[in-house]
Amino acid sequence: MSVSDQPNSPRPLTVGLLGCGIVGSGVVQLLRDNAEDIAARLGASITVGPVAVRTSSRDRPVAVDRLTTDAQEVVDDPDVDIVCEVMGGIEPARSLIASALEQGKPVVTANKELISTLGGQLTELAVANGTRLDYEAAVAGGIPIIRPLRVSLAGDRVRRVLGILNGTTNYILTKMTEEGMDFGTALGEAQRLGYAERDPTADVEGFDAAQKAAIIASLAFDQRVVAGDVYREGITAITDTDIDLARRMGYVIKLLAIVEQRDDGAVGARVHPAMVPVHHPLASVRESFNAAFVEADGVGELMFYGPGAGSLPTASAVVGDLVAVSRTLLSEATPPRGSGPPQAVMAPFDDAVVQFSIRLAVADQPGVLAAVAGLFGEHEVSIKSVLQEGSADHAQLLLITHAARERNVQATLGALRELEVVRGVDSVIRVESSDSG
Amino acid sequence: MSVSDQPNSPRPLTVGLLGCGIVGSGVVQLLRDNAEDIAARLGASITVGPVAVRTSSRDRPVAVDRLTTDAQEVVDDPDVDIVCEVMGGIEPARSLIASALEQGKPVVTANKELISTLGGQLTELAVANGTRLDYEAAVAGGIPIIRPLRVSLAGDRVRRVLGILNGTTNYILTKMTEEGMDFGTALGEAQRLGYAERDPTADVEGFDAAQKAAIIASLAFDQRVVAGDVYREGITAITDTDIDLARRMGYVIKLLAIVEQRDDGAVGARVHPAMVPVHHPLASVRESFNAAFVEADGVGELMFYGPGAGSLPTASAVVGDLVAVSRTLLSEATPPRGSGPPQAVMAPFDDAVVQFSIRLAVADQPGVLAAVAGLFGEHEVSIKSVLQEGSADHAQLLLITHAARERNVQATLGALRELEVVRGVDSVIRVESSDSG
Repeated sequence: MSVSDQPNSPRPLTVGLLGCGIVGSGVVQLLRDNAEDIAARLGASITVGPVAVRTSSRDRPVAVDRLTTDAQEVVDDPDVDIVCEVMGGIEPARSLIASALEQGKPVVTANKELISTLGGQLTELAVANGTRLDYEAAVAGGIPIIRPLRVSLAGDRVRRVLGILNGTTNYILTKMTEEGMDFGTALGEAQRLGYAERDPTADVEGFDAAQKAAIIASLAFDQRVVAGDVYREGITAITDTDIDLARRMGYVIKLLAIVEQRDDGAVGARVHPAMVPVHHPLASVRESFNAAFVEADGVGELMFYGPGAGSLPTASAVVGDLVAVSRTLLSEATPPRGSGPPQAVMAPFDDAVVQFSIRLAVADQPGVLAAVAGLFGEHEVSIKSVLQEGSADHAQLLLITHAARERNVQATLGALRELEVVRGVDSVIRVESSDSG
Repeated sequence: MSVSDQPNSPRPLTVGLLGCGIVGSGVVQLLRDNAEDIAARLGASITVGPVAVRTSSRDRPVAVDRLTTDAQEVVDDPDVDIVCEVMGGIEPARSLIASALEQGKPVVTANKELISTLGGQLTELAVANGTRLDYEAAVAGGIPIIRPLRVSLAGDRVRRVLGILNGTTNYILTKMTEEGMDFGTALGEAQRLGYAERDPTADVEGFDAAQKAAIIASLAFDQRVVAGDVYREGITAITDTDIDLARRMGYVIKLLAIVEQRDDGAVGARVHPAMVPVHHPLASVRESFNAAFVEADGVGELMFYGPGAGSLPTASAVVGDLVAVSRTLLSEATPPRGSGPPQAVMAPFDDAVVQFSIRLAVADQPGVLAAVAGLFGEHEVSIKSVLQEGSADHAQLLLITHAARERNVQATLGALRELEVVRGVDSVIRVESSDSG
C-alpha cells in the first residue's frame, strides 16, 4: 500500500544531509530500503533532499540525486524540513547546526566530538528557537542509550553508568584475553580489519570513550559534563601478565567509562582499564561490541548491548531520530520546556571510591607481606585478597583491595614505592564490581 | 530549587491510580522520591491523585491520601489527567481503561494479560479519541524494550527478537545449570524466595512468556499478534541430563520467546526451551533477570537486559511512561496518526526453520548410527554433530542438526520412534544460534 494514495496524507518530509561518508551513506540506504515501513509507521514519507559533500566527484556507495559542495545551501533550502549532520568534527559542523537551529529547523547528528564539548549550548539554542537537537548515534552507535536515559528512566534516579563505549579497545582486549595476543599484535589485527585507525591514539588512549562518557553523564544526571571533565587512562600499559592474573582471580579486563553521581549531587566521570568479575554482564561483551550498564534506584540494573560503530548500525540510530523528529513535526508539538541542564559540579577524581588490583614485585623474604599490608592499613585501604607466588629472585604479590578512596590508594602506592622490600609496582588496575559503589 | 517557584510554571499533572498493590505502591514511592528530579525534567510536577483499591482497610506499604473502592470514580474525576492501571487481569481493567480513553484521557498500564489479548483494540480506541495508551511495564518489567522497538528502531527492519522474558523459569534453569538442582528442588527454592507463585503453571508452562512474546511481535512487526497465536512449550520436561549434555556441547538451556518475520511478511511466534551457545549474550542472563536480543537489518544485534519483575523495577517503567505522557499533555501535541497495526498473518508453526538437539536411547550394535542418520537424510534434515556414549544396555546418541524445517524434524522424530534400534526419544530441544535464522 502506498501511503501517498491515502486520503489526507501529509506531505513528505525532506531531510537535508550534511556529509555523505560512511554514516551518511548508511542513512540514505536505510531511508530507501525501509521507505514503506517508515511511511506506514509515520503516516508520511521521509525523503532524502540535498546532500552536502566535500567534493562532488568522488565515487559513493549510494546514488544521491542532489549533491552540492555548499553545505550552507542545504541548511537554508526552504524544502529541507530536518537537517541531518553526519560530517563529524567541530567546524563547520557547529556553525551549520547552529544556523539550522536558528532557523527553527530540527537537527539530528551523530557527532560525538561536537556534542561532548558543545552539546549543552546547542541544546539551549534549539530550545530557544522552539526546535530540537537529537543525537542518539553520537554514543555507542546503534545502541539506543540516549532515549532510554532521557525518556524511559525519566522517573527514576540513575546512580551510575558503566560503559564499554569503544569497540576498538574492546576488540584488542578480547584478542589479548582469548587468544593470548600481546597489545601490539592485537592492535595490528584491529588495524588490518579496519576496527582501528592508522593513528589509534583516540581509541587506545581513551579519548573517544571519554567523549561518550561526557554525553552519558550529562543525560544521566541532568548536568553539563564535557569531555575535558573526564579522567582518562588508556589501555597501552596492559600486559598479558595483567590479563592472565585477572583471569585466575575470576576477572576480565575491560576499558570502562564510568559516570556516577554522589549523594551531594557532584558528578564523577572517568575512563580507565578495569577488572570486571567474569559473571558480570559486562564481562561477556566481546569483540568490537559496546554496552552500557545502568544502575538506578528504581529499576536496579539495566544493560544495553550492541554494535558501537559501523555504517548501518550508526545509521539505524540516526534514522530512528529522524522518525522521532518527524513525528514531532507532523503533530506540530512544541518541544519540552527548559533551557537544558546546568553546568555540572564535578567530584574531584581522587574522591572516587574504587576497588584496586595491585601487582608488586617483592623480595622473597619473611615479613614482606606484613610490611606491605601494614602500609595499606596505615592509609585506610583494606585488603580483600592476596595471591603470592614466585621464587627467590622473582616473587610477586597480587593484592585486591576493598573499595577505597582513590587518594588513599595513591598515597599507599607512593609509600609502597619507598618500601625496601618492594622491587616495583608492576601494575595498578581498578576493579569494578558491586563492592566498588 | 522548587519548580513551582518558577514564573509561568504549568499546573501540576494528576495521576489517578487503579490498584495499589506491588506495582502501584512502587509507582507512588518513585513519584514521591523523585518528585524534584521529575519536575525539573518536565517543567511541571506529577502528583498522585485518587487511588482505587479493592478494600480500603488493608495495610499498605505506602501512605496514600485519597483511597476509594470506586474505580470508575477515579477514571471520571475531572482532576485526573492521566489514568494509571496497575490492578492487572482483564476485567474490570479493560472497561476502566476503555472508559478513560473514551474521555480522551491517556492511560499508562503494566497489564500484560490485557495488552497481549486486546492491546490492538485499545490502541485503536486511544487513537480514535485523540489520546494515547502506553505500556512499557507490560513486557520485561523495568527493561525499556517497548520504546526502543517503537521509536529507536522505527527506521530499521527488525527480523527477529529472542527473549528471556520470564524470571521464574530463568531462575529455575540457572539453579539447575549452576548448582545441579533438579526441576522440583529449583522450583521449590523459587517459591520459597517469592520468585514463583504457589501455582507455578503460568510461569513454568510458558503462558507468561507467550503473552510478552505477543506484545513484542506486535510492536516489532507492526501487526496484531495475540497470546493465543504463540506456540508454547514449558520447561517441566527439562532434566539434569539435558542440561549436562548441553553444557558439554557448549550450550546452556533457556526458556526463549522467539518472534520473527519472514520475507513474505508472515510472523512466527513461539516459546520453548532452547539451547543457546555459551558465548551468546543471552547465555549470560542468569537468575531472575530478563533480556531481549533483537536482530535487525540496519543495527545488526542489540540486547536489552535487566530485572523482569519486582515492585520498583516495574514502577520505574510505569513512571517513565507517565513522564512521557505528561510531556505530550504539556505540549498539547496530537498523538501520532494511524489506527494501530493490522491483524497479523501468522506463519504456520511447523514452517519455522530451527536447529534441534535430539537425544535418543539406542541399541548398542553396529549400524545404529547409519540407520538413524539415514532417516534424517530422508527427511532433508542435515546433522551437524553427533555424540555417542554408553554401554551395552544403555547407549545414547545426541544429535545436533543444522537449521531445518520444524515439520521435517517432527516427521524425522516420528520415523525414529518406529525404528527398531531406537529404544526411545529421550529429549528434543531446539537450539538457537546464528545458524538457525
